[in-house]
Order: sequence, then structure tokens, then C-alpha cells
Amino acid sequence: MANATPPFELFYWPTIQGRGEFVRLVFEEGGVPYVDVGRLPEQEGGGRAAILKLLEEHAPGTPPFAPPVLRMGSLRLAQTALICRHVAGPAGLLPAAEHDRLHAEQLMLTVMDMVVEAHDIHHPIAKSLYYQDQQEEALRRAPLFIKERLPKLLGYFERVLGANAAGGEKVLVGGALSYVDLALFQLVTGLSHALPRAMAALAPQFPRVLALHAAVAARPRIAAYLASPRRLPFNEYGIFRHYPELDAPL
Amino acid sequence: MANATPPFELFYWPTIQGRGEFVRLVFEEGGVPYVDVGRLPEQEGGGRAAILKLLEEHAPGTPPFAPPVLRMGSLRLAQTALICRHVAGPAGLLPAAEHDRLHAEQLMLTVMDMVVEAHDIHHPIAKSLYYQDQQEEALRRAPLFIKERLPKLLGYFERVLGANAAGGEKVLVGGALSYVDLALFQLVTGLSHALPRAMAALAPQFPRVLALHAAVAARPRIAAYLASPRRLPFNEYGIFRHYPELDAPL
Repeated sequence: MANATPPFELFYWPTIQGRGEFVRLVFEEGGVPYVDVGRLPEQEGGGRAAILKLLEEHAPGTPPFAPPVLRMGSLRLAQTALICRHVAGPAGLLPAAEHDRLHAEQLMLTVMDMVVEAHDIHHPIAKSLYYQDQQEEALRRAPLFIKERLPKLLGYFERVLGANAAGGEKVLVGGALSYVDLALFQLVTGLSHALPRAMAALAPQFPRVLALHAAVAARPRIAAYLASPRRLPFNEYGIFRHYPELDAPL
Repeated sequence: MANATPPFELFYWPTIQGRGEFVRLVFEEGGVPYVDVGRLPEQEGGGRAAILKLLEEHAPGTPPFAPPVLRMGSLRLAQTALICRHVAGPAGLLPAAEHDRLHAEQLMLTVMDMVVEAHDIHHPIAKSLYYQDQQEEALRRAPLFIKERLPKLLGYFERVLGANAAGGEKVLVGGALSYVDLALFQLVTGLSHALPRAMAALAPQFPRVLALHAAVAARPRIAAYLASPRRLPFNEYGIFRHYPELDAPL
């Protein structure tokens, strides 16, 4: 046992998909065993208490600022894009060529930028305030996001897919599925939950993005995961929230 | 000449420090030659036109979404954190140990997250609107940023410095200066420009962060750069803007 590889432990809030979901999808598609620590019972060392303890402990090395955090032996690693890349190796979801790996990182960071923008449509003033206490500002931000940013960002990923001849315009980078395709899947799933009217209106403009989304959803391991109790439902505490009043028609 | 290494070309808007500045600092401290394409005259292929052309061209491979973009031969690479890491190798600013490199990436992404938050205090509604057209919302967001986020984020970097015994609590990761120290320098410089009253009030709580800031500013190559015409002044078009009405006392 002394030489056994330490297990992958994911530390993330137990009640939301949030940024942790991008990491879970890499584990699930790769068939890589992991412990979702926050979702263990508190008496087994899980729950919110486990996340708070990890964030506050004075262990050697660089502390994390916020979850998700990956723990693997003595390594603690934060930042969603970085964790996803780190797990993508053992998951078999890293592009083979060096320049494709760089571009996967570039695209992953662009997805995460869009996650911030998507979150801030319902939280334009402060994370510490309830939506209801910044609804007036949200009602101003959301239509501008839908009109200006959503088509631009989805159009960008449509263009990336169209430019990837090696992947038959079906994956973002290289010739095979990579972790960044899973991230775009999650982003589109979340935006479709939050803004169903806007996304339906935009759908005809983004056939490649939607085809990738459907192809990821149909992969056996992802389909099994989505149908399992491990996949948390969307709710009004996470990044992607369905507030009908913010889902303005285009 | 056929085997010469292609030059590093940075594509970024010519009139602001912006995100491009994080890249410039790595080049400058490393003494790595680079071409700041946007700042060349238009008749020499520079200016805003060069940036727009790069963003719109249909070249093979993954297109960039937004500047800064690094071009090196046929490689075009976007996303500030990724470009900085890529240049840090030839600049001699990458930590030596693998786990330190991972943590440098983690911290770099955390700096860039804070850049978004710092920008959005004056643009809480939309990038496409002028500040004056979202000033009411900015006046609500800025004091909450100053009260809640600024101490938390600076406190985090203070804690990271304090936990790095290998660096004598003087650098963020490992035993020597790395690219992420330059990024924290630029973040603190920008926040001090934008929010001088708030930062002065907070200063006593963050001695290690301010010592790192002063040490970076005093490095010969950085000092020479900051005194040169290559360093653009702050203005009211970039990320860090000094609007006195947003610089609320704590």
C-alpha cells in the first residue's frame, strides 16, 4: 500500500453543480475513480465542513483561494481550468499534440470567463447579496448579455469548431474528444437551463456547438452520469439559474 | 535564417496597459526581445488595425477570442495567464519544481479573476456601455468590492506569501521570483491607482504584499521599463481607472 497512488479527492460545495461540475465531467468521462468529499456525510468527513476545513487549514504549500480544490496526496490544487487539465491526463482527455494542448487551455479559460459573465447576469453587484437585492441591476444586465455577449461567445466556439478540420468540425481541438469539449457541453447545458428562450432563438446560428453538445450528452459514461444521483439538479444557488424575468427574448 | 527562432509578437490594444501589461512585464523582466505590434505605426503594420486583422483572419488552427494574443511563427495563443506562462520559460521566470509551477498557474488565474472584479466595479452592467451610463450601479458595486472582496483577496495573497518559507515570504511560489510575482505587482499597482484611499487604509494589513510590490518595482529591468515610454500611463479606458467617487473610505 505504501506505493499506491493517492486517490483523487474533489472538494466542492455539496449542493450545487457550480464550477465543481466541470471537474466531475472529466472524472466521469475518463472513468477515473474519485472521491467527491463534499458529498460524503459529515460523520464520514464530508459536507460543507470538509470544504471549509480545507480552505482554512495551515498546511505546507500554497493554499487554495476557493473551491473546487483537488487533493492528491500532499498536492492541493485550485482553479477549475487547471484542475480539469490536471485530471485530463489520467482521464485520457488531453490532446496529443503540444499546440493542441495549448489551445485546449486557451479555450478552457475562455469557457471559464463566460461562466463568470453568465453568473453575473443575476449577481451584477455583489456575491454577498441575494439576487432579489440586485434584481433591478440584473434586469438591466441580462438583456445586454443576451443581445451582445451570448451570440458573440457562442459564435466564437462555432468558429473554432468550423476551423478544426482535424476533428471533422465535431470537437474543439485536435482529432478526438478532449476535456474542453466537456466544458463547452456544461456551459451550453447551463445556459440552456438559465436562458431557454434566448438559447432557443439563437440555436439556428450555432449548429456545430449544438451538435457537440448532443454528442457529449450521448456518450455512454456521460449519459449514465447525467441519469445518476451523482448529477445534482440545477437550482437557484448555483451559477446557472432560471429566472424567467432575465430570459429576455432577443 | 531558415532555422532562426521566430520572434515573439504581442498583439494588444495600443492605448491601454490592460491585460497586455501582464505579458509585457514578463518580457521586460526576462530581457526577452518582443515586438509590441499594436504600438507600431499603422504604416508599419501596427495599430488597432493589426489587432483587428489578427482577430478576424481565417488562419489554420484555433482562433483567439480576444487580445492579448501572442504570435510566434504559426502559433497564435490567447488568454493572458497562458501567454504569461508560455513566455515565462524563455524569460527564466518559471519555478523549477513541478508542484511550484502548478501553484504559479493557480495563483496567476486567481490574479486574473481579480482583474475581472476590479474592472467590473466601473462596468457592472455591460462592457458596451460607457461608465457614465452605468455609474449608478457602479456606485453600488464599488463600496461592496472595497469592503468585502479587496481585503479578502489581498489577505489571500498575504497568506500565500506567509506560507512560502522556501521564498523567505518574499515571493509567492518557490525560492525565486516568478511570473506570478510580476502579475501581483501589476494588480497592486493598478488597484493603488484606481482606489488610492481604500488601498492606503488597507496597507497595514498586507505588509508582505506591499514588500513584494516594492521589490518588483525596484528590480533594474522593471524600474527601467516603468520609466520608459514603453510603459503606458493609466487612463480612463483601461481596467484600472481612478474615479474618485468609487474610491469609498472603508
